[in-house]
Amino acid sequence: MNFIEGGVCAAKGFKAAGIHVGVKTNNKNKKDLALIVADVPCAAAAVYTKNVVKAAPLLVTKAHLADGKARAVLVNSGNANACAPNGEAHAIASCKAAAEALDISASDVIVASTGVIGQELPVKVITDGIPELVSKLSTNGSPDAAAAIMTTDTVMKECAAEFDIGGKTVLLGGIAKGSGMIHPNMGTMLCFLTTDCAISAEMIRKALLEAVTVSFNRISVDGDTSTNDMCALMASGLAGNAPIVSENDDYRAFVAALKDICIKLAITMAADGEGATHLITCTVSGAADEQAAETLSKSVISSTLTKAAIFGADANWGRVLCAMGYSGVAFDPDAVSVAFESAAGRIDVCKNGRGLPFDEALAKKILTEHDITIDIVAGNGPGVCTCWGCDITYDYIKINGDYRT
Amino acid sequence: MNFIEGGVCAAKGFKAAGIHVGVKTNNKNKKDLALIVADVPCAAAAVYTKNVVKAAPLLVTKAHLADGKARAVLVNSGNANACAPNGEAHAIASCKAAAEALDISASDVIVASTGVIGQELPVKVITDGIPELVSKLSTNGSPDAAAAIMTTDTVMKECAAEFDIGGKTVLLGGIAKGSGMIHPNMGTMLCFLTTDCAISAEMIRKALLEAVTVSFNRISVDGDTSTNDMCALMASGLAGNAPIVSENDDYRAFVAALKDICIKLAITMAADGEGATHLITCTVSGAADEQAAETLSKSVISSTLTKAAIFGADANWGRVLCAMGYSGVAFDPDAVSVAFESAAGRIDVCKNGRGLPFDEALAKKILTEHDITIDIVAGNGPGVCTCWGCDITYDYIKINGDYRT
Repeated sequence: MNFIEGGVCAAKGFKAAGIHVGVKTNNKNKKDLALIVADVPCAAAAVYTKNVVKAAPLLVTKAHLADGKARAVLVNSGNANACAPNGEAHAIASCKAAAEALDISASDVIVASTGVIGQELPVKVITDGIPELVSKLSTNGSPDAAAAIMTTDTVMKECAAEFDIGGKTVLLGGIAKGSGMIHPNMGTMLCFLTTDCAISAEMIRKALLEAVTVSFNRISVDGDTSTNDMCALMASGLAGNAPIVSENDDYRAFVAALKDICIKLAITMAADGEGATHLITCTVSGAADEQAAETLSKSVISSTLTKAAIFGADANWGRVLCAMGYSGVAFDPDAVSVAFESAAGRIDVCKNGRGLPFDEALAKKILTEHDITIDIVAGNGPGVCTCWGCDITYDYIKINGDYRT
Repeated sequence: MNFIEGGVCAAKGFKAAGIHVGVKTNNKNKKDLALIVADVPCAAAAVYTKNVVKAAPLLVTKAHLADGKARAVLVNSGNANACAPNGEAHAIASCKAAAEALDISASDVIVASTGVIGQELPVKVITDGIPELVSKLSTNGSPDAAAAIMTTDTVMKECAAEFDIGGKTVLLGGIAKGSGMIHPNMGTMLCFLTTDCAISAEMIRKALLEAVTVSFNRISVDGDTSTNDMCALMASGLAGNAPIVSENDDYRAFVAALKDICIKLAITMAADGEGATHLITCTVSGAADEQAAETLSKSVISSTLTKAAIFGADANWGRVLCAMGYSGVAFDPDAVSVAFESAAGRIDVCKNGRGLPFDEALAKKILTEHDITIDIVAGNGPGVCTCWGCDITYDYIKINGDYRT
């Protein structure tokens, strides 16, 4: 599999666009409405937030995807349409307006929203903007669509790859957003993927679950799981491969590529955590099993104290052990080793549960790099897992202290 | 029950002291060693952190309290003696030094530490300081002891009360510390309580569990549960009441007072959260049962996004619903109401899961007060619970970005 330039229009049969229509009232230069359209009917599936409070567009999308088919994705930023008056009616009206303009069925539209919770969606602003949005659709529209789904994101998140299935080149790509409200249980993160692979909706759903489990569910920015999370995939089938309808070798090749794409987008999200100045990669090995390793690793990257220490370039490994200790996983503290690593080097700070003397100046140098790895050996079990997070900074507080205005 | 002035020396038969011996190397004006001593043998019990990683002094104290008896409490701040070389040996040596100076058995000493994890305890500094510490013991020593167990605390935490048991006046008081690393599962918080009530060690343990459950386990500062948490109670029996050896009316009167004292100390801790500018009281009613109400309330006060919104005096109730939604408790989002309240007034912001129009200026005024209440109705069940937390601020990041130096 090779990563290539591109995003949601990399695969054959997809166009996209993104414009400003006015959902974001405070900045006319910020795009706030995105559309992705397939030339042909697509097999499609999505996974959603596990939050009990679910935004209206998720409920509408779930109904629309019941038949495993879709043609378009309509997304606004600036308003979450969650816990807000007339939420479902507005989501449905948005789908209808897009469907009419595209001459497709409203039930083939995937709809999503991200932004402030609890305020009524300005649905007229959206429906009025759809003709212009449709007029801008192009195979070069992925960056505009990626920009239009951003909220506090500082970096546009696009990714694409090509790989072979049965001798045919298959393309897979996507756009994503996510910065705050991110946590292992799919926390607002939105991700829209397209592929020209011929694959059934049922296999897409299975593949998505497999990929999300090892990517978006292994990142955390702040422990808050959003009401609006969604990851959707549409497959146009134009690659010409033999349709994937069971978990055969072709399916496994597709899942492998999907995992790589999702992991790459997930890491971009973690690195773009609100206010973050460091990407933290935490690898736990030697745990009882993969699940135990994942829980330990997630606990470390979710620890506010560890995140604050990394912000301060402070090799405070005691907080790493502390976070492992309250994770709920059983392990022998006296068997734990911890090292910090970056482009500037590696330093072992704890062995068999006890502190090692280390060069504070070197530790500072290592932790001043942007990309930090916390390498943990939790025992001598077979379980290994890597999770990704970021530091917590003054800017995180600033961004979230007054988000609505 | 009446709250009275005083702390750990309020009850008959207790002396205390606190001095600087040098565990805190960076500031000679900061006390770092505390001692509480009973004139007579005491029934005693303690509860400990649930963190898998337990500090050495906890293990030593657990062994010492196996017989339900104690005479003294020795506590240092500035070093946690957790994950550090020779941890248990140093904790035992500290107990021995105190026991020799006091002419009691080393196994009657409760020992605790709080501070940086992973550095070897400077045991000689402690043992060398014990003679001076013992010479300072007095019935006025509670404030000094309270000061000597502080780390990043900005406020000394003392509390005492008097109440009647069988016509006898009983005194109960304590000192506590806790600011960072605080989370519902007793997260370093230390609390040392003394009473002159005649009560068995078994009943003390039961009473402590009851009281801790509704006090320290219902506060959160940052979701990090420490390796060093401990709450211990010694009873001198000098009040002259009929000894409490079963869960009778006297026991219930004692527990009621203990709960009040622990809740008061717990609220002081939450209000003194690292860098905090607001105390947040979150009351959930209408939940399925008390446990559900507690989980919902804890999820709200633990939500980094909600904490950041309160810091910014932003009535962002969507984050409150979001935090309830990922708490793991089942509830009907369409039945939820939310209001913000303080000395400046009350404002209803959400009813039946939908936003209400509200006066932003009044909301700002309400949320600018120090003490904020989030009042949530989660449905029409009988479950009610109140938890306490604080906002997250620039200073929290500053304090924790470079804690070790």
